[in-house]
Amino acid sequence: MVTKFDRELDQRAANYQPLTPLHFLNRAEDVYPHRIAIIHGDRSYTWKEYAGRCSKLAGALIDHGIERGDTVAILAPNTPAMLEAQFGVPMAGAVLNCINIRLDAAAVGFILRHSETRLLFVDQQFAEVARAAIAVLGEPITVVDITDPEVAGSRPVGRIEYESFLAGAPDTPDIRLPLSEWDAIALNYTSGTTGNPKGVVYHHRGAYLNALGQLVNAELSGDVPVYLWTLPLFHCNGWCYAWALAAVGATQICLRKVSGAAIYDAIANHDVTHFCCAPTVLSFLIESVPPSWVPPARPIRVLSGGASPPPAVFRRLIELGFRVQHVYGMTEMHGVATICQSQEAWQALPEEEHLVHLTRQGVRTVVMNEMMVADPNTLSPVSRDGSSMGEILLRGNLAMKGYFKNPSATEEAFAGGWYHTGDLAVVHADGYIEIKDRSKDIIISGGENISSVEVEDVLYEHPAVAGAAVVAVPDPRWGEVPCAIVELKADMAGDINASEIISFCRARLPGFKAPQHVIFDSLARTATGKLQKFKLRESALQHLVGNGAIGPDSGTTE
Amino acid sequence: MVTKFDRELDQRAANYQPLTPLHFLNRAEDVYPHRIAIIHGDRSYTWKEYAGRCSKLAGALIDHGIERGDTVAILAPNTPAMLEAQFGVPMAGAVLNCINIRLDAAAVGFILRHSETRLLFVDQQFAEVARAAIAVLGEPITVVDITDPEVAGSRPVGRIEYESFLAGAPDTPDIRLPLSEWDAIALNYTSGTTGNPKGVVYHHRGAYLNALGQLVNAELSGDVPVYLWTLPLFHCNGWCYAWALAAVGATQICLRKVSGAAIYDAIANHDVTHFCCAPTVLSFLIESVPPSWVPPARPIRVLSGGASPPPAVFRRLIELGFRVQHVYGMTEMHGVATICQSQEAWQALPEEEHLVHLTRQGVRTVVMNEMMVADPNTLSPVSRDGSSMGEILLRGNLAMKGYFKNPSATEEAFAGGWYHTGDLAVVHADGYIEIKDRSKDIIISGGENISSVEVEDVLYEHPAVAGAAVVAVPDPRWGEVPCAIVELKADMAGDINASEIISFCRARLPGFKAPQHVIFDSLARTATGKLQKFKLRESALQHLVGNGAIGPDSGTTE
Repeated sequence: MVTKFDRELDQRAANYQPLTPLHFLNRAEDVYPHRIAIIHGDRSYTWKEYAGRCSKLAGALIDHGIERGDTVAILAPNTPAMLEAQFGVPMAGAVLNCINIRLDAAAVGFILRHSETRLLFVDQQFAEVARAAIAVLGEPITVVDITDPEVAGSRPVGRIEYESFLAGAPDTPDIRLPLSEWDAIALNYTSGTTGNPKGVVYHHRGAYLNALGQLVNAELSGDVPVYLWTLPLFHCNGWCYAWALAAVGATQICLRKVSGAAIYDAIANHDVTHFCCAPTVLSFLIESVPPSWVPPARPIRVLSGGASPPPAVFRRLIELGFRVQHVYGMTEMHGVATICQSQEAWQALPEEEHLVHLTRQGVRTVVMNEMMVADPNTLSPVSRDGSSMGEILLRGNLAMKGYFKNPSATEEAFAGGWYHTGDLAVVHADGYIEIKDRSKDIIISGGENISSVEVEDVLYEHPAVAGAAVVAVPDPRWGEVPCAIVELKADMAGDINASEIISFCRARLPGFKAPQHVIFDSLARTATGKLQKFKLRESALQHLVGNGAIGPDSGTTE
Repeated sequence: MVTKFDRELDQRAANYQPLTPLHFLNRAEDVYPHRIAIIHGDRSYTWKEYAGRCSKLAGALIDHGIERGDTVAILAPNTPAMLEAQFGVPMAGAVLNCINIRLDAAAVGFILRHSETRLLFVDQQFAEVARAAIAVLGEPITVVDITDPEVAGSRPVGRIEYESFLAGAPDTPDIRLPLSEWDAIALNYTSGTTGNPKGVVYHHRGAYLNALGQLVNAELSGDVPVYLWTLPLFHCNGWCYAWALAAVGATQICLRKVSGAAIYDAIANHDVTHFCCAPTVLSFLIESVPPSWVPPARPIRVLSGGASPPPAVFRRLIELGFRVQHVYGMTEMHGVATICQSQEAWQALPEEEHLVHLTRQGVRTVVMNEMMVADPNTLSPVSRDGSSMGEILLRGNLAMKGYFKNPSATEEAFAGGWYHTGDLAVVHADGYIEIKDRSKDIIISGGENISSVEVEDVLYEHPAVAGAAVVAVPDPRWGEVPCAIVELKADMAGDINASEIISFCRARLPGFKAPQHVIFDSLARTATGKLQKFKLRESALQHLVGNGAIGPDSGTTE
């Protein structure tokens, strides 16, 4: 609709530029040239040096024939080269594909082929898997080897070494800024709990906005933030933090391998103020407290994604001087969609209740436009009663362009104009959401929904249980019933039987929620540590059909 | 250019929404419903109440026939109604025109006509000027009177009172979100130092981005910010702060009239953490320190625009517990374009040098794309030598759509693809800019540039001088020479003559920079306190021609 405020008031170069996080690097170079941008072991780079290296990287890629819209991949942990790729690859107009270093050669080979990668950077620690993946790919590909004094030498995969690659570039190459803010900036393959990995396409607009949002989420605007790279950059480009940190000229500490000791060392040596991580890292922190540890005067800000840690973990971390906030997101939303925004009123609650409040997924971030918990078909939102379950639906400018070369998956994900997370949650009276389950993992038994998470929580209380997963298996009477796959602690194997486990659950759950079947086995996990429920369900079925517990015509619905 | 990352990866409702600050209100209502949003005397509103009132305001406007793209004006100080207009008017799809309350009836009448205002809100304190302005306009217009227990009653201007206007609206009106992020959100008339006011058109995109930028500029993301409304909302929509504060659910303290006592009262009563202001307000702070004042443990964050305060003011304010940062901007950039971003290295400087660093205009903000100090014709940047002068040129997403119904002014402002600020600056070695003059105010004498500010600074050092302005007047030999208009302190008038002033300047400046003429007179200022140099130049000319100091054929170049 054209109004009088549109006449002779068009967009032009002076008042419109595509949103892109690349601007943040340009500004950091101008505003904080001498501030340290990256520390990696004995090496460090100022923002001017970092920006210069990103620029050289872009120039070298262009010199090697990389065109706009080409895919450039990297297989590396959180090192300077990985941080340089976050800017240097898009500065060549290319699309950055960070590959999960925990994947096997077959998965890496699949990704290299599907993404149409034209050039691959390989950290020498991952030379072997890269070599095997290229064999799987079966086509020649340009490989640049990243060497690092921190890693023992290995036979190079390609014919160019990273520093020589940079050195060969012109000093001031012609950077390719995006022509549109809808241009792709990155490609991130999901870990594939339900089949082949899907390539999530990021856009400059979403990357820019989420980077700004992270400054607010993590309160990154004060003084000089010192950020520790505990979150892998191959997860959602580190939730867009490499871009966000440039916006405030933060100092970044690289970390090739995350451990409790490495984190406490970095805090001691570099006065770390912020980091992001998975909940496992929080356990490291609790297990590895150095004897000389004194909680810092200003708590260290931690954003923790993945499953929410239990209240006891929050309590201990607060004592230790960490301020942890739970965030929730997924690759498809540039990493983070919600945050458990703390409220001043919570301070007045009894401690236990306060801690429970912290474990929720919370509310949408400042740059996330819309979220609802609703029936995914009717799009009718659930009541804010803390018990009605619905699927978490999201929409807005943080959502991906879609899945690369997979229009049917894109359409399915965006059905009805909302992104379907596949996560089931309740909404509390204060509007904060709490995840109860993955929608694929819900068990519908006699018309009642059973949350597999709830049953798993009970199983974890059993002293002999090291790990547990609950899946749906078919049942002639109830439709589906819960089946528990239980991993026993090493010294307990053989001492516990299925009926003991079932009784334990019956004593603590409504009867229909207790598992009908128990299988003792190890738990299949993805490269990122997620339970692969579809695999567990499949092997549980085979097992139960094999021992006659259920009929032979039962199949997976997957 | 279409690449493989554009195929079947289009924008759609799930992954693209127009950027608009209206989302921040919607989120604040969800996330901080019970937190206090607005305090005005004895009245206060929570975020839920505030959002509800904005929604009612939009509904009432729609009920009264306001269409998308209509202009709705308001003449009010910083009251709840003024804050409600920031959201409620654009939520009706209308364009908000906040009128400077210091203007006279002729100027307000001009704005009402030029803006094609369809509905006007008038705070009862400004009933008389509104009545007179409507007489100037000469056409009927719908007027809604805003009453306030803080102001003595006056005869209403229109036939509807604000609270009844809101009460008449439906409870859940159909809000009109922008159809495009390039839709106009506000119209702000510049104060017109060089002619008729120009109407600057703001867009939802720029308002959204600048609001996010302000969170970073002022470090607004922590805990619950308490923001004091010392900056008028009729200046650039208060630099987009009403929108920014919604993004973090801050508490806002209204202030009908700014004074040192009122600010210190608000700090004492409400624990103010942030405010923005003109440099005059900083003087109020220094003059009105309460005897019982104790600097707060955490310094109060102040962003100060307009002319930069001198080092002594910074020193005193730091002692008093205020952390002042100088920002620079203009109506055409949604308010703020640069910030004197402090650097940790400055802490090590001698105090005087540190304070001088704080007085500079600084660097572009995180959301301001590009700035250069350059020759405005060749666009060739000046050296970073602290002495080469050029014009400050800006471009990027904070720039206005253009001037309303004034395409020639728009083209002139955006000539060469950059916004021309008209301000002359130098760039220091660290990239920080420092304004030396308005380009219209530069004096070119014998091929040398003379900064009128530099000469004025010397004049201000004279103990008898209360105010001073230096303008160019024609000279047969030098082309132009500086002429000083000097306002003497009341008790000094008559005791000082022109040659004393000239000798004083010659002792402190290179000879060519000292004024050739001195006129003792009062200084013409705009409603916002800016010197009207074009008027001063004109009257100086008349004066000098009148007394024969310069030839009768000299004219203004304006």
